[in-house]
Amino acid sequence: MLADNPADDEVRPDDRIDDERLDEENTLKADYVRAVRDALEEGDKSQVYDLVEPLHPADIADLVELCDADERRALAEAITDLMSSDVIAELNDHVREDMMEALPAEAVASIAEQLETDDAVQMIEDLDEEDQQAVLAEMDDDDRVAIESALAYPEETAGRLMSREFVAVPEHMTVGSLIDFLRDEANSGVDLTNDFYEVFVVDHKHHPVGTCQLSWILRTPRHIALADVMKRDQTLIPDMIDQEEVALMFQKYALISAAVVDENGRLVGQMTVDDVVHIISEEASEDALLMSGAGDGDINEPIREAYEARVLWLIANLGTALVASVIIWYFGAAIEKLVALAVLMPIVASIGGNAGTQTMAVSIRAIAMNQLTEANTGRILWREMRVALLNGATIATLIGAATAVLFTPMLGAVIAVAMIINIVVAGLAGVLVPVMFERLKQDPAVASSVFVTMITDSMGFFAFLGLAVAAGLAA
Amino acid sequence: MLADNPADDEVRPDDRIDDERLDEENTLKADYVRAVRDALEEGDKSQVYDLVEPLHPADIADLVELCDADERRALAEAITDLMSSDVIAELNDHVREDMMEALPAEAVASIAEQLETDDAVQMIEDLDEEDQQAVLAEMDDDDRVAIESALAYPEETAGRLMSREFVAVPEHMTVGSLIDFLRDEANSGVDLTNDFYEVFVVDHKHHPVGTCQLSWILRTPRHIALADVMKRDQTLIPDMIDQEEVALMFQKYALISAAVVDENGRLVGQMTVDDVVHIISEEASEDALLMSGAGDGDINEPIREAYEARVLWLIANLGTALVASVIIWYFGAAIEKLVALAVLMPIVASIGGNAGTQTMAVSIRAIAMNQLTEANTGRILWREMRVALLNGATIATLIGAATAVLFTPMLGAVIAVAMIINIVVAGLAGVLVPVMFERLKQDPAVASSVFVTMITDSMGFFAFLGLAVAAGLAA
Repeated sequence: MLADNPADDEVRPDDRIDDERLDEENTLKADYVRAVRDALEEGDKSQVYDLVEPLHPADIADLVELCDADERRALAEAITDLMSSDVIAELNDHVREDMMEALPAEAVASIAEQLETDDAVQMIEDLDEEDQQAVLAEMDDDDRVAIESALAYPEETAGRLMSREFVAVPEHMTVGSLIDFLRDEANSGVDLTNDFYEVFVVDHKHHPVGTCQLSWILRTPRHIALADVMKRDQTLIPDMIDQEEVALMFQKYALISAAVVDENGRLVGQMTVDDVVHIISEEASEDALLMSGAGDGDINEPIREAYEARVLWLIANLGTALVASVIIWYFGAAIEKLVALAVLMPIVASIGGNAGTQTMAVSIRAIAMNQLTEANTGRILWREMRVALLNGATIATLIGAATAVLFTPMLGAVIAVAMIINIVVAGLAGVLVPVMFERLKQDPAVASSVFVTMITDSMGFFAFLGLAVAAGLAA
Repeated sequence: MLADNPADDEVRPDDRIDDERLDEENTLKADYVRAVRDALEEGDKSQVYDLVEPLHPADIADLVELCDADERRALAEAITDLMSSDVIAELNDHVREDMMEALPAEAVASIAEQLETDDAVQMIEDLDEEDQQAVLAEMDDDDRVAIESALAYPEETAGRLMSREFVAVPEHMTVGSLIDFLRDEANSGVDLTNDFYEVFVVDHKHHPVGTCQLSWILRTPRHIALADVMKRDQTLIPDMIDQEEVALMFQKYALISAAVVDENGRLVGQMTVDDVVHIISEEASEDALLMSGAGDGDINEPIREAYEARVLWLIANLGTALVASVIIWYFGAAIEKLVALAVLMPIVASIGGNAGTQTMAVSIRAIAMNQLTEANTGRILWREMRVALLNGATIATLIGAATAVLFTPMLGAVIAVAMIINIVVAGLAGVLVPVMFERLKQDPAVASSVFVTMITDSMGFFAFLGLAVAAGLAA
């Protein structure tokens, strides 16, 4: 199709591509945030309101997060009626918790009633037991029962996270009667504001027997029975499984939504991909944070919690560093005689540590994605050994030659051999330590790093100093 | 609803919860994989077929990945007609590339024709230019044109990844006429096998003016115009933006699908969340791999590519380790006089490195999620300084006291002060280095780690050895 008038053909202004307030990455511009903060500081509430009013709820949530704790409360006061349930649902957990604790129970209850159950649960689950009870007491019976039933499930299970609003219909229905049923809002039991992507077909005991994508329903003549269009082979999510497994099922089977069933196989809820997307992102990114011992790794986490998580990790690493120190101590006499050993020591340990971390990061990711299983551990270990030998040979040549020139050929040979040993040991440890923790049902991302570093540090020092002594370099 | 007969109430067997072949995490059991491999080795094709036939396509893809390269080809031969386009689409990129290269161009073309355009593009884009042309030459005109138009976009842009099949209708349509239009397959331009989740409403120039979720259409009486139910404020994806930004938009605005527009604002495709889920997972998990220099970090990556990516990183780290060695060398005389310095040195550097990695992991994640922007860098830096001071004080007390007891009180004081300095420097570097690379439009996850380690290593040695000399400990 050709445009008749080139002027008509220019980029149309779009509500969501908001150049004044958002940059090209959809992030709030620093100038805009500064303008809001200045208005807050001046106490000019109506200007704050005018500035914030055009934003999408997700951007209002971002704005709240960018402010510090005091500004947040002032901002919430200035834009009370813009702080919709959509904004609350989008807020970072820590920021939401902080804001909810500052509000009276009735206010929290009235926000919770406007949210879908799963979002309301997320908001309430972080409160103290006492505050939870106070909020629940203020709620409608229906909402309270739904939230209490969610809270009865352990945290991070499908039952806790699922939405209790879904469309379930009997098998004998036709496409036409389903459409009529949905058009009659009173029947459907689902609030019109909630989107859904499939209709679950159930038997008389409420066991799922099939599922219909809405797009199939829309393309099928009215007289056809649902039983003839539905897919019988559907993925069911047991209500007690962990969110990480839910995320893997959504990824593996490319699901948009899925039925959640209880231990008796009855349909009790549904999970939709928009909720799972957050879980996928969290689970996938937590490895980098867990491997470094940064805990939950959220920049909004209270300082006290961040300190506690990180200092424990540093203390654990202090323990592993002491092992390395003991080895050096043991070779103290050799170092006194040949101080070049002290100069070169950190190189062996540091490169070994890096090689170990590389292999470990690959293994941990593969374990998380169910790609490294009992069925292929041997093959992957052999693969990593070959990569380690190639890496070891390359690095050993470089550092060995440099050392031979700067110090002595014998010291060059010693550091080269020590380097190969350490990189191969690092490769072994990088695969075997995470696999071992996985078998022991521990999260490999949390526990592996300390052990792999301890192994590479101490092996590095031991191989290098031991070989130097054996070669008579410090005699 | 109470069950009248308790026996009826037991868990129903479900096709997808497959106990014989899958464990509770939906991973193929090692025993099952072994049985398939044994049958392959015996050359018993019909047994292989019988074993694999009940699997879901996603599980067949997993099985292929678990085998080594030789077994893969034998497996593909034994189960040719089970190797559907769904299996091919689910395969790991490296494994698919490896298998495609072994097939003749006609075979690849006939698989590509069965795939949705976006999956076909993914399959073809990794082939050599020459093989690509050979495959395209074998394809139908329609499919070839669609794939060529995708390949004309740069890799990892929305235009490359989008699906070219979608439903777009004019604004004046009513709900009833839309349903009639969809029921008439010939009109719709979309293959019945493809799911879709929203209908795009466009003007006469094919510019999107609104969007209708299918669930709204199903709940609206036939006579209502689409213009009255559609949402005008929709998120549009420019065709040239990077997949990482697409993933962030889907997460931020909780999208299921979204329209892709070209530079003239015309609707050219759609992206659906099932494709974006893979991108979200990849982008979120690549930080751990990039920070460790493990490259693409895929266990199926060819050894040569893994070696090249990792050895370059190790060589870069060799450079940074040399900086630390030069500092130690400078203090060589002090170490000769007091070998305890060599014993304690690695502790200061190792804890500093750990503290730096923690802060860096948090900053990199926050930058990736658009949570750390120009608007709050100052506040986050101040937050990290406070955490660093708490960590530094704790670790300094522990190591200082131990050193005072084992060596001398003065050496204890020196290591305590050095530790605080190094942890604070690590906190500063852990925020500022990633922020700096982000400003320079470099990926902070790739470049930061080498610099942060270099800073913490050399500052650790310098502070500790320098303070020891200044305190007259090695006089």
